[in-house]
Amino acid sequence: MSLHQTIALDAMGGDFGPPVIVPAAALALKDMGETRFLFFGDERQIKLELDRHQSLRSVSEIIHTDKKINSEDKPSAALRAGKDSSMRLAIESVKDGTADAVISAGNTGALMAMSKLVLKCLPGINRPAIASSFPTLRGQTLMLDLGANLACDEEVLTQFALLGAVYVRVVKGIANPSVGLLNVGTEDMKGHEELRAASAILSSVEFPGRYHGFIEGDDITKGTVDVVVTDGFTGNIALKTAEGVGKLTSEFLREGFKSSPLAMIGYLFAHGAMKRVKERVDPRKYNGGMFLGLNGICVKSHGGSDIEGTENAIIVAADLVRNGYNKRVAHEVEQLMSQESFFSSVVNGA
Amino acid sequence: MSLHQTIALDAMGGDFGPPVIVPAAALALKDMGETRFLFFGDERQIKLELDRHQSLRSVSEIIHTDKKINSEDKPSAALRAGKDSSMRLAIESVKDGTADAVISAGNTGALMAMSKLVLKCLPGINRPAIASSFPTLRGQTLMLDLGANLACDEEVLTQFALLGAVYVRVVKGIANPSVGLLNVGTEDMKGHEELRAASAILSSVEFPGRYHGFIEGDDITKGTVDVVVTDGFTGNIALKTAEGVGKLTSEFLREGFKSSPLAMIGYLFAHGAMKRVKERVDPRKYNGGMFLGLNGICVKSHGGSDIEGTENAIIVAADLVRNGYNKRVAHEVEQLMSQESFFSSVVNGA
Repeated sequence: MSLHQTIALDAMGGDFGPPVIVPAAALALKDMGETRFLFFGDERQIKLELDRHQSLRSVSEIIHTDKKINSEDKPSAALRAGKDSSMRLAIESVKDGTADAVISAGNTGALMAMSKLVLKCLPGINRPAIASSFPTLRGQTLMLDLGANLACDEEVLTQFALLGAVYVRVVKGIANPSVGLLNVGTEDMKGHEELRAASAILSSVEFPGRYHGFIEGDDITKGTVDVVVTDGFTGNIALKTAEGVGKLTSEFLREGFKSSPLAMIGYLFAHGAMKRVKERVDPRKYNGGMFLGLNGICVKSHGGSDIEGTENAIIVAADLVRNGYNKRVAHEVEQLMSQESFFSSVVNGA
Repeated sequence: MSLHQTIALDAMGGDFGPPVIVPAAALALKDMGETRFLFFGDERQIKLELDRHQSLRSVSEIIHTDKKINSEDKPSAALRAGKDSSMRLAIESVKDGTADAVISAGNTGALMAMSKLVLKCLPGINRPAIASSFPTLRGQTLMLDLGANLACDEEVLTQFALLGAVYVRVVKGIANPSVGLLNVGTEDMKGHEELRAASAILSSVEFPGRYHGFIEGDDITKGTVDVVVTDGFTGNIALKTAEGVGKLTSEFLREGFKSSPLAMIGYLFAHGAMKRVKERVDPRKYNGGMFLGLNGICVKSHGGSDIEGTENAIIVAADLVRNGYNKRVAHEVEQLMSQESFFSSVVNGA
């Protein structure tokens, strides 16, 4: 564990800004050992919150800017006009080595465009993807892209498959991870042209994992594959639909336990177990999507995240720093791309 | 209630064929009063099952064919080569008035293409959409398209919004239903071009409901709108992802109640309530997607449906017949389309 990891936070990102992001850092700090925090944004607002968290305050620095990216800004406009924004400055701090990782709950499109411009993609990778792990019947599965790239051609999808496989190999130690493409059916002729083309490439090339083929929506939680690859539009909707179903079930359970005296007695006995079930599917525990494919660690937190969810995104970033995962992933991708394999030639379009 | 409704079943559709479809009809018959069933498919296999269900057998007729559409057949090939298939003959029986509704668990693309060709779309509607109701925190919401049309332009999406609104008005009696377009964010600039174009049309035209704007994946179960409109690719993946999360939660709950003696005692008290919770989110209860926008009733059952799920799809179709919903929806759509309104001119591309 590095004694001096430094985490950069876009304090103005997300629906709540400093009142959520600062307390989240205070919570994360308790779990993380020696860490410095850089808060980018409105000094007055950040200071107000930091004053309530003394131990965090002593390891934090505020980099003031009154510019911020809004959720309705177009990525292109954010790139042009957002040079002094809290998001941009936070990303720059990773580029220049001041920070080891950046976390933002701000505008996803802007974060993607800026992090790509500033940090650059790994060799052979055109665009970074947002990736996160999800609970399944068989453990966890990594899914990407969760919203960075709305439309993806076969080349980009193939790169995501490679990135996901390398990540799972490095981080989870699965030597030969299985990779599936999310589709509306498992037959070869199903889905969009880009999906069929990506499937054809992955079926025929040297690949750092095992290509499983197409999978369907319910395969995500079945744990059919180690890595689920999809475009950012579909991935984002699948993710948020899953969150919604989780909340609905939770509410129905709450109503169920209140529906009769017997059920209430049952809850008295089972509430410990029920709490653990709730924790297993709590979307906040899975908040924090890393941008895979970048030269540098950038984590996207859900715009609507509360303190606990934001804390988790910070921990995701810190884990990547402390375990050196990002560097090992970058190293493996570089090696793969430098080989004169069919895969790299297809992916690089050579 | 009509005394002589006739339901046509594609007995060869889906993963299981007659061993699931015939018992499902037997179950449905108990709830449905006087109904005739037409089974299209392999006579020997169907008869084997019918022999086990005497009361069903007495109201059933088998129309033999040894041709069937396979799940991997392309819709275009199914149209050309599938003229004597069980699916095609079942649809034809609705066209010629022999049956009041058709149900198939077969190849979705083929069912869509055949039903469109044979039954034809309502005036002003280019393509039918698969629609189904889902449980939400506030009741139910209608979602379409769930998989009939993988890619949808703004014109088709706008027609789906119209169809959904009319259906909810007719069937649920909601005078001014709210309609949302499923997207990755609620801001105007989010999502694909077709979504933004559809949103612009729906924002500006006379519309038999209230256009809410973009919604996100978690809004489906929040019940934010009465009608959720999306393309068939996204809708199918959202639907199946939701089913998968339901199954995962169910399994986690089962494990939770078995995780300690206290939790097991809790289950003894609460199992009645838990059973009702499970029923509220049971995907089988929501099986049976109707093709909205057709001249005739065609219901798609999930290919992997069991007997109970298939029974539900039959009941969905029978409800549409008995309440005359389909005719009332058709009548309202015709009226709307015949008006010289801005909406019909946009939708008809005039």
